[in-house]
Amino acid sequence: MLELFKEIKDDLLAVEIELREVLQAQYPILTETSMHLLNAGGKRLRPALVLYGAKFYQFNLEKVIPLAVSLELIHMASLVHDDVVDASMTRRGTPTVKAVWGNSISTHIGTFLFAKSLVLIAKYEDTPLVSKVLSDASVKMCEGEIQQISSSFDVHQNLKDYLYRISRKTALLIAASAQLGAAACGAPRGIHLPLRRYGHNLGMAFQITDDILDIVADQSQLGKPVGSDLRQGIITLPVIYALSRCGPRGRLAELVGKVEKSEEEVQEALQIVRDCGAVNYSFEIARKYITKAKRELNCLPRIPTRSTLGMAADFVGIRKF
Amino acid sequence: MLELFKEIKDDLLAVEIELREVLQAQYPILTETSMHLLNAGGKRLRPALVLYGAKFYQFNLEKVIPLAVSLELIHMASLVHDDVVDASMTRRGTPTVKAVWGNSISTHIGTFLFAKSLVLIAKYEDTPLVSKVLSDASVKMCEGEIQQISSSFDVHQNLKDYLYRISRKTALLIAASAQLGAAACGAPRGIHLPLRRYGHNLGMAFQITDDILDIVADQSQLGKPVGSDLRQGIITLPVIYALSRCGPRGRLAELVGKVEKSEEEVQEALQIVRDCGAVNYSFEIARKYITKAKRELNCLPRIPTRSTLGMAADFVGIRKF
Repeated sequence: MLELFKEIKDDLLAVEIELREVLQAQYPILTETSMHLLNAGGKRLRPALVLYGAKFYQFNLEKVIPLAVSLELIHMASLVHDDVVDASMTRRGTPTVKAVWGNSISTHIGTFLFAKSLVLIAKYEDTPLVSKVLSDASVKMCEGEIQQISSSFDVHQNLKDYLYRISRKTALLIAASAQLGAAACGAPRGIHLPLRRYGHNLGMAFQITDDILDIVADQSQLGKPVGSDLRQGIITLPVIYALSRCGPRGRLAELVGKVEKSEEEVQEALQIVRDCGAVNYSFEIARKYITKAKRELNCLPRIPTRSTLGMAADFVGIRKF
Repeated sequence: MLELFKEIKDDLLAVEIELREVLQAQYPILTETSMHLLNAGGKRLRPALVLYGAKFYQFNLEKVIPLAVSLELIHMASLVHDDVVDASMTRRGTPTVKAVWGNSISTHIGTFLFAKSLVLIAKYEDTPLVSKVLSDASVKMCEGEIQQISSSFDVHQNLKDYLYRISRKTALLIAASAQLGAAACGAPRGIHLPLRRYGHNLGMAFQITDDILDIVADQSQLGKPVGSDLRQGIITLPVIYALSRCGPRGRLAELVGKVEKSEEEVQEALQIVRDCGAVNYSFEIARKYITKAKRELNCLPRIPTRSTLGMAADFVGIRKF
């Protein structure tokens, strides 16, 4: 992904420095956990979209840095809280905060990161849209997470349930990132709304490919074990497709619905999913969102960033990590 | 406490209705957990302070209701996250969300409540102080919680550590409640700053008496088992005083520092704390904060609410639940 961010390399560096600055805390354990999270890496997709979005209207780096930082903080907070939930012990190849510090600290660290983002958002007094969009997105992200937990191991979910869930869990914050960078620079609706829709579709495609990678990826590239969604009972698009092919009483449904699976059972389920064309089907759906994302770009001014965002969309469809 | 809120009974009812309205969610588990929390009760101290504060300057109920609701939501969020942490199974005599739904749901429910509060706070575009004060308070509340966890079972804490911790964990949000009701109605600094300081001192006294009650209260009145702080390793003012009397190598330090205590050991530690004058000493400190709180009231206009706030401060010093 980094190659795609070349155009904003220096700006992203400024965001990174500010992230580290913001997370300096009085209490050592806070700085320690925060630095652990920052050093674990991440694509910084949301800050990049803030910066790219801002390029479409009177770009002002100083104006968008706090916003870019706050979006990454909200994302980090959701990852930390996610780790409390799913008990996964690695993310991006590094031990999670939960694995190192436990549930209690993780819960508060997540909220700390989230609260820190609010301090930054409070600076956008002159763009009330920022706090409106981000508070709404935060509520819906939680709803998506809760839906995910309460529907885990439920083999009766359908495509609509899945799309609703990932739009909340993932696409909303990516949409907000693409929209608010421009909005914070004063862009009119005619600019920030297409950017928002671009972000939404990109986010949907992003999550779908993420879910495909959990079925087919090379573990060393992914940085976490393949099949972790299945183990946790998270039923993703390829699995929903495969279930619809194999029927709710078939072997796959039996395996997927089982709360405690052996490693052999996980591998068997993955194999059934791979063998029934679910991966191609899911890529097809992802590609539709990518097409939609690129179509939104046509509403935007023809600046070089427009092509970059088009390439970013294409990249999401072929990424391997 | 309710007797003290008679003056604002109808307004508090309006807050309660709005709380229920706001927490209606699309997803049943969210409504269910939220209603569970609301029905568990609570003193609604923060909404009451918002309303009372607003009485000092062009009181406007419609203007302060979202604020009152958002302060209760932040408080509820912190309780839910607290329960993830301390594994306590009852609060106010009712099973906690954590006890019923587990850690994973609790983490997201807490964040959901917090995020809901942001949606309400976003309405105060014309009073940027609201989001500034509340985002700052939220960060510091997390810091307080994290400090509490990482200093648990540590018998070397002193009075200063304790006061710093409770000012963040408790007093800040109470201070914000007292301040922001007036500020949202347009009150000048000369009014909302004394209210803030009143709230801070009231909050300190409130937490200290809470900590005393955990040593001496009647369990049926308190709604949770006595000694729960000691069990969790939270070292409160009476214990700090008792430790300073008994020395860091005494029997009390041995008991307090022990992570797994038998019920007999908890009772023995409580007895040592009660026997050395720690309770009277702690009441004395609480009383100092109450005096300070009441002194701040002298800076405010002489309206009937001023006497009510004075009585509220006195009440905190003698409460039994």
